[in-house]
Amino acid sequence: MNKKKIVNDPVHGFISIPNELIFDVVNHPYFQRLRRIKQLGLTEQVYPGAIHTRFHHALGAMHLMSLALQTLRSKGHYIWEAEQEAALLAILLHDVGHGPFSHALETALLTNIPHEAVSLLMMERLNEEFDGALHLTIEMFRGSYPRRFFHQLVSSQLDMDRLDYLQRDSFFTGVQEGTISPERIIKMLDVHDDRLVVQAKGIYSIENFLVSRRLMYWQVYLHKTTVSTEQMLIQVIGRAKWLYRNGGRPFVTPALEPFFEHDVGWDEFKQNPAFLSAFAALDDYDVWGSLKFWVAHPDPVLARLSRMLLDRRLLKVRLENEKIAPAEIEERRRQVAAKWGLIPAEASYFVGYGAVTNAAYQPKDDAGIGILTKHGQVVDVAEASDLPNIKALTKIVKKYYFCYPKDI
Amino acid sequence: MNKKKIVNDPVHGFISIPNELIFDVVNHPYFQRLRRIKQLGLTEQVYPGAIHTRFHHALGAMHLMSLALQTLRSKGHYIWEAEQEAALLAILLHDVGHGPFSHALETALLTNIPHEAVSLLMMERLNEEFDGALHLTIEMFRGSYPRRFFHQLVSSQLDMDRLDYLQRDSFFTGVQEGTISPERIIKMLDVHDDRLVVQAKGIYSIENFLVSRRLMYWQVYLHKTTVSTEQMLIQVIGRAKWLYRNGGRPFVTPALEPFFEHDVGWDEFKQNPAFLSAFAALDDYDVWGSLKFWVAHPDPVLARLSRMLLDRRLLKVRLENEKIAPAEIEERRRQVAAKWGLIPAEASYFVGYGAVTNAAYQPKDDAGIGILTKHGQVVDVAEASDLPNIKALTKIVKKYYFCYPKDI
Amino acid sequence: MNKKKIVNDPVHGFISIPNELIFDVVNHPYFQRLRRIKQLGLTEQVYPGAIHTRFHHALGAMHLMSLALQTLRSKGHYIWEAEQEAALLAILLHDVGHGPFSHALETALLTNIPHEAVSLLMMERLNEEFDGALHLTIEMFRGSYPRRFFHQLVSSQLDMDRLDYLQRDSFFTGVQEGTISPERIIKMLDVHDDRLVVQAKGIYSIENFLVSRRLMYWQVYLHKTTVSTEQMLIQVIGRAKWLYRNGGRPFVTPALEPFFEHDVGWDEFKQNPAFLSAFAALDDYDVWGSLKFWVAHPDPVLARLSRMLLDRRLLKVRLENEKIAPAEIEERRRQVAAKWGLIPAEASYFVGYGAVTNAAYQPKDDAGIGILTKHGQVVDVAEASDLPNIKALTKIVKKYYFCYPKDI
Amino acid sequence: MNKKKIVNDPVHGFISIPNELIFDVVNHPYFQRLRRIKQLGLTEQVYPGAIHTRFHHALGAMHLMSLALQTLRSKGHYIWEAEQEAALLAILLHDVGHGPFSHALETALLTNIPHEAVSLLMMERLNEEFDGALHLTIEMFRGSYPRRFFHQLVSSQLDMDRLDYLQRDSFFTGVQEGTISPERIIKMLDVHDDRLVVQAKGIYSIENFLVSRRLMYWQVYLHKTTVSTEQMLIQVIGRAKWLYRNGGRPFVTPALEPFFEHDVGWDEFKQNPAFLSAFAALDDYDVWGSLKFWVAHPDPVLARLSRMLLDRRLLKVRLENEKIAPAEIEERRRQVAAKWGLIPAEASYFVGYGAVTNAAYQPKDDAGIGILTKHGQVVDVAEASDLPNIKALTKIVKKYYFCYPKDI
Repeated sequence: MNKKKIVNDPVHGFISIPNELIFDVVNHPYFQRLRRIKQLGLTEQVYPGAIHTRFHHALGAMHLMSLALQTLRSKGHYIWEAEQEAALLAILLHDVGHGPFSHALETALLTNIPHEAVSLLMMERLNEEFDGALHLTIEMFRGSYPRRFFHQLVSSQLDMDRLDYLQRDSFFTGVQEGTISPERIIKMLDVHDDRLVVQAKGIYSIENFLVSRRLMYWQVYLHKTTVSTEQMLIQVIGRAKWLYRNGGRPFVTPALEPFFEHDVGWDEFKQNPAFLSAFAALDDYDVWGSLKFWVAHPDPVLARLSRMLLDRRLLKVRLENEKIAPAEIEERRRQVAAKWGLIPAEASYFVGYGAVTNAAYQPKDDAGIGILTKHGQVVDVAEASDLPNIKALTKIVKKYYFCYPKDI
Repeated sequence: MNKKKIVNDPVHGFISIPNELIFDVVNHPYFQRLRRIKQLGLTEQVYPGAIHTRFHHALGAMHLMSLALQTLRSKGHYIWEAEQEAALLAILLHDVGHGPFSHALETALLTNIPHEAVSLLMMERLNEEFDGALHLTIEMFRGSYPRRFFHQLVSSQLDMDRLDYLQRDSFFTGVQEGTISPERIIKMLDVHDDRLVVQAKGIYSIENFLVSRRLMYWQVYLHKTTVSTEQMLIQVIGRAKWLYRNGGRPFVTPALEPFFEHDVGWDEFKQNPAFLSAFAALDDYDVWGSLKFWVAHPDPVLARLSRMLLDRRLLKVRLENEKIAPAEIEERRRQVAAKWGLIPAEASYFVGYGAVTNAAYQPKDDAGIGILTKHGQVVDVAEASDLPNIKALTKIVKKYYFCYPKDI
Repeated sequence: MNKKKIVNDPVHGFISIPNELIFDVVNHPYFQRLRRIKQLGLTEQVYPGAIHTRFHHALGAMHLMSLALQTLRSKGHYIWEAEQEAALLAILLHDVGHGPFSHALETALLTNIPHEAVSLLMMERLNEEFDGALHLTIEMFRGSYPRRFFHQLVSSQLDMDRLDYLQRDSFFTGVQEGTISPERIIKMLDVHDDRLVVQAKGIYSIENFLVSRRLMYWQVYLHKTTVSTEQMLIQVIGRAKWLYRNGGRPFVTPALEPFFEHDVGWDEFKQNPAFLSAFAALDDYDVWGSLKFWVAHPDPVLARLSRMLLDRRLLKVRLENEKIAPAEIEERRRQVAAKWGLIPAEASYFVGYGAVTNAAYQPKDDAGIGILTKHGQVVDVAEASDLPNIKALTKIVKKYYFCYPKDI
Repeated sequence: MNKKKIVNDPVHGFISIPNELIFDVVNHPYFQRLRRIKQLGLTEQVYPGAIHTRFHHALGAMHLMSLALQTLRSKGHYIWEAEQEAALLAILLHDVGHGPFSHALETALLTNIPHEAVSLLMMERLNEEFDGALHLTIEMFRGSYPRRFFHQLVSSQLDMDRLDYLQRDSFFTGVQEGTISPERIIKMLDVHDDRLVVQAKGIYSIENFLVSRRLMYWQVYLHKTTVSTEQMLIQVIGRAKWLYRNGGRPFVTPALEPFFEHDVGWDEFKQNPAFLSAFAALDDYDVWGSLKFWVAHPDPVLARLSRMLLDRRLLKVRLENEKIAPAEIEERRRQVAAKWGLIPAEASYFVGYGAVTNAAYQPKDDAGIGILTKHGQVVDVAEASDLPNIKALTKIVKKYYFCYPKDI
């Protein structure tokens, strides 16, 4: 069988699968599962175009990695074939451990099962299946490979992951302002003392990248309606879990079951392969599929929240610079309880609040963006002269959300 | 609440929801369900970007309808506000009766429930809910409204449905060659004797549109891998249905259940509202959700086919100009039966064959594309001089597919 | 004749010429001349795609103006037909007084003839020709019309001029990072106390706009090679002028002649219509056309500089944060004089230096960007909270360039 | 000096200049002159965005050539470094012999100097300058190199020239329907018996390419207003030439002079290097620059036609399927003569007529498009089954134009 394939990508054009091992990894069920997990989870409730999947993003990031390695080679940095393959696999698999609606599920159900750790675990399993062929991949992913720029290409403030997701999310949401130019940024990458750096003339592209990223945060990722919809999902899963463990036993799909049974700890997860099996079957269809059952459940909280999500009758939401006053939260709960005949504990499921934060740039340790000056020194981009505003981008901005039913 | 909304569309930019009634229809569960139905069903197995939904397409077609009406007005055709609203609603709802994986399900399960009829039924229910506000919409959709160009804008060889889906499918699959320019075509629309026509100078745009459409058919809609994947889905549902009715009782989601129980006739469907309720809850999550259960079913055919679909281990497929020889089909069946220890009837589920046909242009009756000559006459585009090849496009092209497991 | 026209624009799609007066102004020789003036002058020496003209930009800005007025109307601000027409004409004509290579010519030849003043003068002439039909246009352009937001749409930190040129320049240079989304920004415009403001939720779009603008400044408008090429043009024209007035009489095209004869003052320009006639005939063809003659002139400075420009043998250029040391300049001059056998005064024509400055945002008086808060107050965007970096963008950045022949 | 450069292209993104020789050729005055020649000549009078130059197109075609060679290599065809360089240079220089407004000037002035022959002559001169480095380039350009697919990549029905210009012209005019996908077509190229072929699965892309090309012909290249504007240019140059040789001596720029003096034959052109020198200095600035002088010439025909072109007061034009009746032509001439007080011979300059023809596909000899079937045979695309309309595209379509002043 021909194992050199070309995949059509509306964002990057043609993406080549360069060799057989990568072809086989792409076709592995672990990776194919990503076809069924939307990159931006519930964001499509706000931007209907945002239905692109983690599958496509991972392929896109691999494509950018190959461009980056080509650039580095053209600048005289020798890269072994084995390193090339490992770097491509590392970026391809960097998010393979994501579950559906990652943030919501990690908050409500999989509290001890962080996706980074699952990614690593899955890579290790793949490494066994492929007779050690992913050994170097794992080193790079972990950051233990000596030429550390490989790790930085996989995971840093300027990794191929970010370059792909910013461009892709901007494309699919239609938020054109967020457009960055990965190809241009990549052309300006270099390596200095085994560290990934950006040539001085690329400084404005970096600034643009950081500002676009911030814009995407507030306009898309932390859009107040997305935040409140996610709250609803967290609440509905929390309620289902509570009911499940307290006799209500709402229907849940097989892949979700083990995690509804009891809170699975990380050690337990690692030791009992049944958990990884279940996790590796989890996708968006389990979550929406379960929700579709819950609309008929006798519990008024579970049924109502599920119905609201399915029919997109979302909570009203406010985003403020100041913390929400407890009295106001209390008042809303009372109104909900009164209107729908619920007890206070039940009403709480419909009133959400909390904080979201974002800093466009967090320079620290290895992960900052180094600029290679004309004089051969590396300075952090936030310290580079004549860009007075990058430093300002390191400030953490915090906002408070408050959501509750519309018609109370 | 503010009921004038703007929706972000990666294809058309901003789409405005122009008034309250349309806002309410968009927010109705019937329409929100379209968020959960992919426009191109299984095509994303071939073109991973093709995960756009019927929801987005319907909004896009409505957007083009408003451009078309604006053009007609600017050419002196009076259009009442009520007609404008009805036309927008008619195109918005023209596909509301589609189920998930329409073609596959109508073949394997919902044989008596054509989506056009369901669309009309749903519009009638909405008309009741909204106190008759969709009366004119229904007339236009049906084609009984006297100014017949409205119906042609909703359903003809050059309707807003096609203009949107061709551009949208080309955008999301990344098949750039299929690109058409709906805005330009719309600028050249006119009305003559209540019939929708295209100004003579638009003839090359029409040709381009027809050729692009044909390209999309063979490159995307009838791509051999899409065809074979759809065959697999038809077979797996057929098998599940057979088991369900013969004691195997595989799990199916609630919305699918009534249709697994027995073959529902159209009269039955219309008379018993439970069927429409079930149908109105059906979406992609029911199909994939059920498949995810079936991988663990004891029936080897059901389990294997489901697993193959989930892990994207697709059948090998050939597309030929000649009919497949029965002997060859028989031979493949025997091989499958031998390899997997199945009886012949079971092996048949893994060997598919049939024909696909396409004609880029089918001029007939009302639905052909009329060209308005400089002299004020209307001729069918296939009769227009100096386009020798359009006539050729009316020829029906037929191809034969044959699919079977890869490694036998 | 049909005076409603549609113009095809690769940037905005279709641009409509909405009425007869505007059609006639577009067809006036004053405006048609803009077809022969590149928007970015010598930038195409660096970005070969940047050959778009002021003609196209002016139409594009008019298109955005019509979108902006439509948005303001939809938000309840009444706008008279006469105001609409005047606003469209004001933006259409805002740059009509630009000569070819504006900055270079205003520096070297037309020192007393600023393009803004010429624009106004041309509008006044057009007003006479069209029997006073541009009266309101002139008021708006000048800023004397009471509803001052019209002037702000024509000329301010967020006018339709900037929105079009940023998007257009980014498109034609291929510098994708500079992409802004004029449509989105326009959707968030509003008017408060007759002042143009931006709704609070548009704050990130504004930030992105300012940062993109800065990027375009350093990446395109003030690109060091553009700066040095412009220096060459300034020098060659200075030399030609000097020769012309000192007996060398290089050939110049008729439209340039009056300005080579002597330095024309503004009063003189206004009083003697021959000057405006000459100016109104000036375009890129006069400048390149004259250069093509000069390559054969006996003066070694004129001939060499002209030849270098024509064959794109550009000066080497450095951009520094510190002022260039006089000794270094002197040294380069000496080298040039020695190499090409020139006297020092002649050598100076090949050695350029100076400063370029840019501030991404200059809030002052009327022209700052006002944000309309949720509480109905207007604050300058630089004062708006949670955008720590906008204030930083008001800082003026200054850089020093130094250019001289490559092989000395 | 760094001779590896990257050029920004709005169409293809980044274009790399791969080596020093190519860098030097690009920087040669012969090639730099192409910066001053618009690819589509007068088309910008109809599509204002169409101001892209032959410079940019040549670089774009070279870029596509490098993609094509990469594809052929990946399919196992060995290509020597020297062949690669020669192929890139051949496509880069294939149009270097174009003068400004090629078709018009070859009709009215340079009747014996076809641009293909000039291209070859220029390559030969460059070959001398670069010490024989372009020997192989010339072989490929001429078609005398044994591996004939190289020539086909440079010049055939599917050469890199066409792939670039179709995409580029579509981009800059804004005629989106003309969009083709060169990358996709290139991916399907192969070589069979040293002949360039297209894999069978690429057949729909080829059809789309041919139809898009035809659309561009009628919509852009042969747009009736372009045709009539070109007629005006042919007439004005014809008139200037007549006057020049009959004592009127209108001003012409130095590069035009030798060709106004007398009709230069091809032998004369080849033998006297002064002609090539003059030709190599010819660009758009000579034509428009001369026109700008002619508006003040005493001859009423020359002055009026020049003024009409400058102010874009174009002739009215009709495009018909039938030949224009001589009586009608005569009648228009009489009207012009009467209105403007001209003698009939003078009036003729304002009345143009003739024919334009186009065939979307002309299969002949080497130059047809060969399709490589699954069975390893090569058939002409027009003979390939299931594409009934390609044969239709070989039909030559002929139309008749007739143009004359608007207000007579």
